[in-house]
Amino acid sequence: MSSPLERLRARREALGAPLCLGIDPHPDQLPEGLPRSIVGIEVFARGIIEAAAEHAVAVKINVAFFEAFGADGWAALERVRRGIPGEMLCILDAKRGDIGSTAERYATGLFGHLNADAVTLSPYLGEDAVTPFLEYPDRLVYLLARTSNPSAARLQELPVDGQPLHLRVARWAASTWRDGRVGLVVGATAPQELAQLRRAVPGPPFLVPGVGTQGGDLVTSVRACDGSWAPGVVSVSRGLAGASRGPDWQRAAADVAGELRSRMLEAVLHSQASAAERIHSGGS
Amino acid sequence: MSSPLERLRARREALGAPLCLGIDPHPDQLPEGLPRSIVGIEVFARGIIEAAAEHAVAVKINVAFFEAFGADGWAALERVRRGIPGEMLCILDAKRGDIGSTAERYATGLFGHLNADAVTLSPYLGEDAVTPFLEYPDRLVYLLARTSNPSAARLQELPVDGQPLHLRVARWAASTWRDGRVGLVVGATAPQELAQLRRAVPGPPFLVPGVGTQGGDLVTSVRACDGSWAPGVVSVSRGLAGASRGPDWQRAAADVAGELRSRMLEAVLHSQASAAERIHSGGS
Repeated sequence: MSSPLERLRARREALGAPLCLGIDPHPDQLPEGLPRSIVGIEVFARGIIEAAAEHAVAVKINVAFFEAFGADGWAALERVRRGIPGEMLCILDAKRGDIGSTAERYATGLFGHLNADAVTLSPYLGEDAVTPFLEYPDRLVYLLARTSNPSAARLQELPVDGQPLHLRVARWAASTWRDGRVGLVVGATAPQELAQLRRAVPGPPFLVPGVGTQGGDLVTSVRACDGSWAPGVVSVSRGLAGASRGPDWQRAAADVAGELRSRMLEAVLHSQASAAERIHSGGS
Repeated sequence: MSSPLERLRARREALGAPLCLGIDPHPDQLPEGLPRSIVGIEVFARGIIEAAAEHAVAVKINVAFFEAFGADGWAALERVRRGIPGEMLCILDAKRGDIGSTAERYATGLFGHLNADAVTLSPYLGEDAVTPFLEYPDRLVYLLARTSNPSAARLQELPVDGQPLHLRVARWAASTWRDGRVGLVVGATAPQELAQLRRAVPGPPFLVPGVGTQGGDLVTSVRACDGSWAPGVVSVSRGLAGASRGPDWQRAAADVAGELRSRMLEAVLHSQASAAERIHSGGS
């Protein structure tokens, strides 16, 4: 079995687009007919993955939506994770961040027990929160840099030596871990920061959540997501989950995923064409 | 049943000292004879709480040490939590931090499903990560400000407008939530920062982890932990868990807890006496 990074490269190559299925199922937003419980959550999560997998390079599961149900939720999460096709990257969006000895336990749970290929982590405690995860060979980590929520700027835009904190975090991560295994979470809702970050740290792959069904965000996100060390991914959650509340929710999610993949592919091709044109015309 | 804050006040008043039992059980460090599995972890956690509860105002359980075992770990965590005596505060040290809709799910898991009295949270995403927790009336939140790990300074000491980031976080929290329900996590391993933070933000209660068996840290921590809005707590983990690896581990933990409580009480009384003296002599 190839490493997660090799699988990500191969899958991205095969599909041509960086679509990641975001799984954040809230019981109040499930399709009609599904129970508003962990049973409904599990059926829905597996159903979305089954329906849309062919268009996606990765699945990003937000752990909170299972953890809300305690042990039953974790048991469901274990089953959902096992159901993800082997050629796709399984990212557990956990945003953990603790001191070294505790981070080792989180790594045991997420990489060991749940066998995730990648996790999201918070940078607030420094490298102690990250290095225990990197002791698992080949696994990937995405560090929060600039998130997509309304109050993201509270800390992340604070000025440190004339640059926003999130840029400082990104530069620190990019200079500390240079093998493509440590990427950055950069929200699509701040397209300007996204483009700036891409220019400032060309290496690390980005995980870009927060993409809606709007074209603008999607194009900016796709163009900015790839790093020079590894392919990035663009995660879509509500666009898929909310495609239909009726009995056709699986087919609707598959249709939306196919359409998103096409639009991402178009953005990639257009971006490549522009780059080629700049090279031929001698511009930069 | 009184609110968590009222129970904390009453318990602190009754015991005179802010000892919090830190439960971070690693399978490799369990007493001899206990299985190196979630079964051993659960027996140990319940045993430490049973043995030492009479000396403590609170129990702080680090969720990672249960999460490492997946669904079985969460089932054990649920049982351990139910076994905590009602007069003690149950703090789940989870360091979660996510966007609003996801934070609501974490709050459902930790406050709803597990019925914790308090949780620790990361500040990196701003108030979106905090407010869903405050919708549970009476529950407490401790925001990470200055942690006790070696790489804590990487972000937390970065200069923002001439002050370290952790101070900025503390001031933001203290000015945003002023009812004693939002406290701060401040590690005992940085005693200078601890004392400075206490002077800078006199209101919020502190949760002080990282206290070893050394007298210096303990005295500084106890003196700095209390806020003017609510009592703080000083958490001890390895000092209790490592008291004995032999069959007497419960009695040894009880002895250490009793001794820690006495030393904390002494520090409190000495601190009160000094303050009274300063007032009588007209000093400050």
